[in-house]
Parts: sequence; structure tokens; C-alpha cells
Amino acid sequence: MVKTTERWIQSQQYRKWDLRCLKLQPLSPVPSDIEISRAQSPKAVDVLAKEIGLLTDEIEIYGQTKAKVRLSLLERLKDQPDGKYVLVAGITPTPLGEGKSTVTIGLVQALTAHLSINSFACLRQPSQGPTFGVKGGAAGGGYAQVIPMEEFNLHLTGDIHAITAANNLLAAAIDARILHENTQSDKALYNRLVPAVNGVRGFSAIQLARLRRLGIYKTDPDTLTEEEVRKFARLDIDPSTITWQRVVDTNDRFLRKITVGQANTEKGFIRQAQFDIAVASEIMAILALTTSLQDMKERLGKMVVANDKKGEPVTAEDLGVTGALAVLMKDAIKPTLMQTLEGTPVFVHAGPFANIAHGNSSVLADKIALKLVGEKGFVVTEAGFGADIGMEKFFNIKCRASGLVPSVVVLVATVRALKMHGGGPNVTAGAPLKKEYTEENLQLVAGGCCNLQKQIQIAQLFGVPVVVAVNIFKTDSAAEVDLVCKIAKQSGAFDAVPCNHWSAGGGGAVKLAQAVEEAARQKTSFKYLYSLELPIVEKIRIIAQKVYGAQDIELSPAAQSQVDRYTQQGFGNLPICMAKTHLSLSHQPERKGVPTGFILPISDVRASIGAGFIYPLVGTVSISNCRSSSTFFLLF
Amino acid sequence: MVKTTERWIQSQQYRKWDLRCLKLQPLSPVPSDIEISRAQSPKAVDVLAKEIGLLTDEIEIYGQTKAKVRLSLLERLKDQPDGKYVLVAGITPTPLGEGKSTVTIGLVQALTAHLSINSFACLRQPSQGPTFGVKGGAAGGGYAQVIPMEEFNLHLTGDIHAITAANNLLAAAIDARILHENTQSDKALYNRLVPAVNGVRGFSAIQLARLRRLGIYKTDPDTLTEEEVRKFARLDIDPSTITWQRVVDTNDRFLRKITVGQANTEKGFIRQAQFDIAVASEIMAILALTTSLQDMKERLGKMVVANDKKGEPVTAEDLGVTGALAVLMKDAIKPTLMQTLEGTPVFVHAGPFANIAHGNSSVLADKIALKLVGEKGFVVTEAGFGADIGMEKFFNIKCRASGLVPSVVVLVATVRALKMHGGGPNVTAGAPLKKEYTEENLQLVAGGCCNLQKQIQIAQLFGVPVVVAVNIFKTDSAAEVDLVCKIAKQSGAFDAVPCNHWSAGGGGAVKLAQAVEEAARQKTSFKYLYSLELPIVEKIRIIAQKVYGAQDIELSPAAQSQVDRYTQQGFGNLPICMAKTHLSLSHQPERKGVPTGFILPISDVRASIGAGFIYPLVGTVSISNCRSSSTFFLLF
Repeated sequence: MVKTTERWIQSQQYRKWDLRCLKLQPLSPVPSDIEISRAQSPKAVDVLAKEIGLLTDEIEIYGQTKAKVRLSLLERLKDQPDGKYVLVAGITPTPLGEGKSTVTIGLVQALTAHLSINSFACLRQPSQGPTFGVKGGAAGGGYAQVIPMEEFNLHLTGDIHAITAANNLLAAAIDARILHENTQSDKALYNRLVPAVNGVRGFSAIQLARLRRLGIYKTDPDTLTEEEVRKFARLDIDPSTITWQRVVDTNDRFLRKITVGQANTEKGFIRQAQFDIAVASEIMAILALTTSLQDMKERLGKMVVANDKKGEPVTAEDLGVTGALAVLMKDAIKPTLMQTLEGTPVFVHAGPFANIAHGNSSVLADKIALKLVGEKGFVVTEAGFGADIGMEKFFNIKCRASGLVPSVVVLVATVRALKMHGGGPNVTAGAPLKKEYTEENLQLVAGGCCNLQKQIQIAQLFGVPVVVAVNIFKTDSAAEVDLVCKIAKQSGAFDAVPCNHWSAGGGGAVKLAQAVEEAARQKTSFKYLYSLELPIVEKIRIIAQKVYGAQDIELSPAAQSQVDRYTQQGFGNLPICMAKTHLSLSHQPERKGVPTGFILPISDVRASIGAGFIYPLVGTVSISNCRSSSTFFLLF
Repeated sequence: MVKTTERWIQSQQYRKWDLRCLKLQPLSPVPSDIEISRAQSPKAVDVLAKEIGLLTDEIEIYGQTKAKVRLSLLERLKDQPDGKYVLVAGITPTPLGEGKSTVTIGLVQALTAHLSINSFACLRQPSQGPTFGVKGGAAGGGYAQVIPMEEFNLHLTGDIHAITAANNLLAAAIDARILHENTQSDKALYNRLVPAVNGVRGFSAIQLARLRRLGIYKTDPDTLTEEEVRKFARLDIDPSTITWQRVVDTNDRFLRKITVGQANTEKGFIRQAQFDIAVASEIMAILALTTSLQDMKERLGKMVVANDKKGEPVTAEDLGVTGALAVLMKDAIKPTLMQTLEGTPVFVHAGPFANIAHGNSSVLADKIALKLVGEKGFVVTEAGFGADIGMEKFFNIKCRASGLVPSVVVLVATVRALKMHGGGPNVTAGAPLKKEYTEENLQLVAGGCCNLQKQIQIAQLFGVPVVVAVNIFKTDSAAEVDLVCKIAKQSGAFDAVPCNHWSAGGGGAVKLAQAVEEAARQKTSFKYLYSLELPIVEKIRIIAQKVYGAQDIELSPAAQSQVDRYTQQGFGNLPICMAKTHLSLSHQPERKGVPTGFILPISDVRASIGAGFIYPLVGTVSISNCRSSSTFFLLF
């Protein structure tokens, strides 16, 4: 009875959280991220969960500071209006990044701990590869962090491990299947697939579904004709078409290209393969885009892993592993609750690669958070790479999958990156910054603001207001920052404000929070950039021309033939997920600012059918497993 | 104050748990394992934790039914006497297994739920490979199970995933190191290893330790001579000696033998390698044998991964990754608390392979459980394979690492296996049983009891009393079971009793529990079989002759040269972990009963220096990654 009443109250009204925020006393100079993280004591996660309106049976605690949230909550709160939905995107970055994660975290710290507005940050789970590589963690930085940092960066609640297990189970099934089909008769295969149990044999539900796909409507295994047995028992996978790779959540450059099957037991069926980084698995993209357990299961089943010898797609469902994949992923589908340095709530869920996938955290975390913050609250999430890539995919792919409508885009810029776009010297990770970046140079800043302007215009294509957040470094001069804000507003931004969250925590992002709150009151007219019904090539052209500013696109023969194949296979209606360098609006990383007059080369086209998108490879973009190629730091 | 008093009481007295047991109402015929598991509602794990005397801040809850237990408990209860320590081992098994896990679980269900004696089962975490292969789960079976079965069999609390991550980080570091050393000058390597941070460079603690190992006592990086720079910067790993393999927790036969490094970026440094199954990682063996976080870190650092070109061992510490490995393993070191079908406590922790490692669950779980059950309570744990392998390693390796003294051995036998040893036809997994096994045949039973007798004698070598548990199948006749019990007692067993836990739960193992309780009151005089000071070959010979009944041993030249190398490298004082088939007391799986007159061939000798044992390979034993070679079931 008590529970029912509690549920009723929670579902009927907007509630400002009674949240105990954690006090921050920022030091100067700012200590290291790990020192800041360890100096703060997080609240017990069950306390936090209660503060934001979660019921006891809606969370599954993992240790003291992490909890998974059950999807049943969506049903309980289904009649509650959503909060405001804010996307943090960036201008075309330097290799050092613009600080989108710290802005995301600083913004929610400001909203909730300083302005008493309910808010949630929804973040991606980082790969452990770069964590142990040169990149470091992804928990934010300075006084805008998720804590405890180690819990965020390592293992978390095991989602990436579950993805790895599911991905590799499917990979093993593919090779094992090919081997068995190559070495056994139709009848032997059939007898192993449909064995007699205590003298009786019958088809499983999954086998009956496969039979129906093959146009066979028999239910007694003993009545199939030889031809039907053959069709049922053989997938006839063409090994040269296998697109499903094994994955590992480690930067392991020696696995980029390997030969498998060299043991005698595999009877000579060797082939070349590779390991991708775990977050590049299509299963990760599915986790990010799925809306329910049933939907996830269907998407897992639809994943295409190869073609058969007739050119027809072979799916995970054909291999009969959908159930096993879904059971391995049954906990991963629940978002993980953590907190910021100031004790405000954060969801960490899914972290698909931003090149071959869409680079956004999960739809489910956003949906749950939008219910929890209530009508006047805010959910802030982040898009990987520059706005031309991450934001475009957020709108055209993620928002399409979720049906959610964004309220505001926060566009993060740094003086450093703008100077680079204005003609400053190269910025390289690991090398000291040139003096152009440490001394005032208004001319370079002014010259580079074209990139900011272009990214603002891209957001406006989708009908969403933009607030520019200038992420302040101590070497930035006041005049430089003022100039950026002025140009941003002239370029159509709703507002532009400097942010000091890195050195000051949420208190340093209050102006940003206020600007976002105001912008969210604007009437928006969100729209997708293209209709799914358009041909694949047309959709690619729209993105290239309207977003990147290309003159046109040019498909290689391989790309064109893939487009034809996917269209013929019935996958032409999927959205497009461009795999392009993030270091330029064009396909050429060295072209900064706003390149024009270029023809965007599409070298290949691939598809993630379960996740639900086609991904064209632009130019020579690398979709390698190990984006951070050096594990050199590991040497000592 | 409250907490202090609570701690005091708990540490001062033996306490019979006030445990709410779960009622079982066994059905006939016995439903499937998963049906039985799902029909029972487990207690919330925090309730269970409280019932057995754990304090709130000593557990970390993972969902509703699993919790990790903190090692701080060992400090709090250090003055409390240990309970009785019971090992469940088996006779030489058929490929279908003897049911050691069900006996272990049935026994604790009987002790606690039926006799009100505190007890704990300490089990291994199963690999997911066989779970999705032909073997099925390892949560027990019938009415003697750990619940929920899916939680036990999948992911658990992520320990195996952590091991995989740590193992593969080390593997990546080895290849990356070799590549960098092959392609860079001494000076370039040195500058990357000891970079100037803000113009200043210094050695890390881990680097200073390495310098000391090299006999260099300088602390200023700029004062090393060219020769010292070279010694410091180069490990000079001989690629042909690399013994560290990558691992995956999936049965993936195509990874048994692979070639890595074939991408252009690796500049031609290809080499042949393999993936082992994750539970075969030395890190798993370390997790099972370690006694504290500090000890684990030291063992991780000591792992030898290759030799350098002078034949000296290269360790994880030399590669500088000890800290990274330890942080990846910081949660895995805590045992996971679960429960049986009758609500009694279970620890699940570590699951090293029983061939290349010692095949026992963790020392830490046993130690904690022995404190929690109190002086009059029982901790029951299991040794993999037959007693000649698993039990021998339990005594000589695990008990040596822990310092714990076993009270009783429960030796599990089945009428089926005894008939096989008496000359019955082959027993093959997947094939129907021959009629000799389904009809009464006293002659075969009597003939096979020699194996039971031999295994009893092996336990007696260590001075530990034996209770024989006859694991009853419905096809066993009363006369057959009586005969086994009679011969067992004549052969020196303290007692021998039939067990019906599979069909009846703890109620079916009450007689076994009573026999074990009585046996545990015997005065024991536990002793190891050999002294560590003996030469490696002598230790191997003692095991071969006294345990297996071999006439002598014969080392291949390769094995002899490895023995010489390890002895020269200072590893001669480690215990021995035999890698032998479990299907015979000899090295030949087809020789059943008690083979005699054989010379045990030692084909190779390897070492797990971090785990702390030498492992000779006996005959043609396979230590392949994928013990269950078929993933065929995955096809549909």
C-alpha cells in the first residue's frame, strides 16, 4: 500500500529534488584530476537514488558508488512530462579536445548545485583502451568530474565486458559454423542441429522461425525433404564477406591484422581477421540506440555478419545466437547511476565510437533521466567529435531512434582551437604548445571564428537554439574571450558565455547554466536534415553539402557497389552515419577553418543493420581498432 | 560506539547463525536445473550477509543476489578461531563428471539447513566458455544449486572480465615494447620512458626499483652513462621465448593458433601466438592463491613473461605494468557472496584451470569463510579433477600458500565411474549410456573399487580422514551402493554414505553431513607430501610414484633443459603443479582402475612464477585454450 501511494505521488507531480549537494572548495593551482576525485567523499549511491525519486526496487547497487537503474521506471513514469534536453557539442577540435565532457559535467553541477534546478548528465562509458593509453580517462577533469574517477574509468558495472563477451561469442560461432559446414554432410549437420532427445526430435522456436524465413512451414523434423534439410542446415557463408570482427577492450596494436585458424584442429580453414576495440562493436551501437529489452533482442538478431555465397545477408539470428547474446546483455541494458563532484546525478551508459558509430550515450539513459528531472529539469548529454559529426548524428540518428526532441545545443569552443582555425601552427598531443597559443593574439582568434560560425549554422539547420560555451584556459586573455563571445552572438548564437568549471566547479558555469535555462524557453522547431526515404547516395550528399560545405560527393566503385547491394538487400531506408575525420569539416584533417570547394570522396560504404545505420567511409579515415596507437606509456 | 561494540561481540564469541533457510519442496521427476533455480526466491544478499555476521561496511552489493566481501573482515576477526575445513574431491571420473559440485552444495545445505550447523561452500567461478559450450554451467545441479543460476554462470561480479583485461594489457605491453625497442635508439627510448615534465625529469618509484635491480643506484636521470641508459631502456626480450598469451573467455577454436602483427604499422614484426581461455591466465591462479592486496601486487609483478636474449627472465614488473594490473584487479580480489537453494551462504571466487593451474577456488574466500562459520562451523570447498590431481594440488600448493589445515576429505564416487574402472565400456559425453551402466552389475562395481581405494590411500598420505560420498543415480541398485560403501570402509575410509542431494536437496545429504561432522572430530596429522627444498625432478618423482603409482618418471630433453633453466634462475624451490589427464591415474586416459608399472613421461616443464609453481606437462596432455572444443550447439 505504501509503495502504491509513493508511486502515485511520484507520477503525478513535478518535484524539485531535495538533494544534498557536496561542497567544493577549489584550490589554486588546480590539483591533478585524481587528487581532486579522491579528496571528495561521494554520497552512498542508494542515498542519491532516493533523493532523485528512484524507488528501492528500481535500483541494483554495485558497490557504494554505482547502481544500475531498472527499465521498469519508464513504465512507472510514462505519463510524466519530459524535462529539457540539452546537447553539448563542439567546434572542430584540436587533437587535445575542447572539453565537452567537462562542460557537460560543469553545466549540471551549476544547474543543480548552484541554481537548484533538477538536472542529469548522461555520459558515455569510456573504453579502457585509451584509459591505459595516452588519452587518460573520460570522467571530466578539474573540478568538473564524475566520482570516483577509478570506478568510472575501470570496469564500471561491466557493460563493455558484456559487449565483448557477446561480440566474441558471435565471432566464434561464425568460424565454427563455416568449419562444420565445410567438413560435414547435410545429414550430419542436420542431426547435430536437431538431435533426438530421449528418442524424440523437434525444432526449437528459433529454428521454426528460421524455417519460416526459408519458406518451409513444416514442424516435424523428420518430414523435411533433402533439399529442405540442405537449405536449413547450411548458411553457406562466403568467408571473404565476413564483416564481424572480434573485439578487445585493450589498445593492442598487434591485433589489428591477424591470421586465425592456424591450429591443425581447424583443418586449414585459416583466414585473415582483426580485433577491433570493444566500443567499436555494433553491439555497443545497439546498446546506445535501443529502447527496450525486446527491441535490443530484435536488433541483435538483425545484425548482418557476412553474405552467403548468393550474396544474401547472413544474420546473428541465422546463426541461432540471438538468445545467448541477449542473455549476456541483460544487465548491460540498464544505465549506471553515479554522481558529480558536487553530488548531482549522472548516468553512464554506452560509449559507441564516434566514427564508425554515432558517438552518443544511450537513448535509454536519456529517456529515464528526462522523466526523473521532471518537466522543469534538464538532461545534458554530449556528442563525440565536432558538431558536424557528433551533433549531426545525434539529431539524425539518435533522436530519430528515440523520438526525443532537443531543446538547446551548447557549442563548446576554446580560444586555442579558434586560433588554430585562424591559421595558428599545428597543435600536437604530447608536444609543447607554440607561443601563439599562450600569448594574446586577437587576429588569430578572429580569423578562426569562421569555424564556430559554421558549426552554429549547422545546429540551426535542425532548428535548435545554440549557446556557445567558451571553455577558459588560464592563458586566454579577457579580450580574446570577449571577442569570441561577440562574434558568436553576431553569428546567430542565442548567447555566448565564458566557463570556468574546470578551475571552479559548477560555480564557474553558472552563467552558462542561466543562458541554457533561458534558451530552453525558446520555441524550437526541431527537424531532421533528410528523409529516410531518400536514396542512400542522396542522403550522403545532403550531409556533405549542407553540413560539411562540400561542393559534391564522389563515390568509389566499391562504395557504389555497396550502396547498390544494400539497396537491393532492402537496407536503403536507414539513416547515414558518416565516418569522417573530426579534425576538419572536410575529409582532409589539415584543412582548418571552413574549407570550401571540395569534393567529398566516399571510399567505401558499410552497414550496421542491427544498430540501424549505413556508414560511408570518407576519404582515408581510419576506423582502426586502436585509435590511440601508442601503448608506449605502458613501458614503465 | 555502536559499531565498536558490535565488532567486539562478533570477534569474541562463537555464534550459531540465526539464518532463515529457504524451504525446498523437491518434485519428482526432478525438473531441469534452470526450472529449479527459477522456482526459488533467493533472500536479498544484504539480509544473508547480516545473518552470517557481516557488518554493513564489509559488503559491496552487486544487484539483489550478489555481494563482494571486503578483506578488512580478516583483520576484524583475526583472533577468532577457524572452523573445520573440508575438501570435496573425486575418484578418477568419467567424462560426465562425478558430481563434486553438487556434493559440495548438498553438503552445506544439509549442515546448515537441516542440522543447524554454520557452514559455507567455497566454489570456483566458472568460465563462460564451457557455459556456452557443451558443458553447461557449474552452479551445481538438481536440488543442490547456487542461485540464481544465471547470475552465477554469467559475468558474476566481473572477476574473470578483470582478469582478461589485466592479462591482455600485459600481452599488449610485451609486443609494443619489442616493437619500440626494435625501431628506436637507446636515447629515444630513454627519453620516452623518462620524459621531461615541465622541463624536469625524474624516475618513478617503479623505475627506481628497476634501476636497483640492474645495480644502478643513481636517482638523477641525467647522470646515467650510455651503457646504463641502454641497460635501463632495453629489456631485450627474445620473442621466441614469450610464454604470455592473450586470453578470451569464449570457446573460440580459431584463436588456438594465430599470427599477430600483420598490419603495416607493426613493421613486419609478426609472430605466432594464441589465445588461451581466460581462466587459464596465470592471473587467475594468482587470484586463487593470494592472501592480500599487497601479496597479489607482488605476485603480479613477479610473473615471468619471456626471457631476454641472455636467458634471464623478464617480468611484468620489468615491463612496468604491475600498478596497472593491480588496479584492474582491485575489486576482483574480494570474494562474491551468493546462496544455495536453501538460503545458506556460498563464496564464489577464482576458477583457475585444474590442469595448468591448481584448480581450486580462492584462499581468501576460504580464510574469510573459516572465520565467519566460527570454531564449530564448516567450510566446504572443492578440488577440480580426480583426487590424484585436484586434491594433491590442494594440499601441496593451496594449503601451503594459505597455511590452512584440512580436517576431512569427502571423496565422491559414482556407481557409473566404478563400473567403468571395473572394465565397463567407454563412457562418452553426448552418447547414450550402455546397458552395463543402467542395469545392476555388481561384478563391474567390485572390480572398479580399486580406483576408489587408491584415491582413499592418496588422501591418507596427507594424514586426513576420508568420508566417501556415493552420489546416487536413479539407475543405481541398493546392492550396488551397499557394496561400494562396504568396500570403501574396508579400504580405510572413516565412513561411506549414499547421497541423494541431487533429487532431494540438503535433506538427501544429512547422513553425509553427520559423517563429515564426526570425521572432523578425529585428530589429524596433516602433512605435505614433499619438501620444497628438494630438487624439481625429485618432487615430480614423489608425486608420480606415491600418488599416481608410477614406477618412475622420464623427462624429455626439453623438460630437463627447462628444469635446469628454472633451477638456475632460482625458481627450484617452488611446489609442483602437474598437468596430467584427469581420466586416469596414469598419463594414458584409456587406462582405468589402478594402472601400474608405467613410466610417467614429462614432455615439458613450465612455470607460473607469480602464482608460484612449476608445472610439468605429462605425456601428451592438452593445455589448449578451449577444453570444450565444440561450439556447435551455438549453431541454432
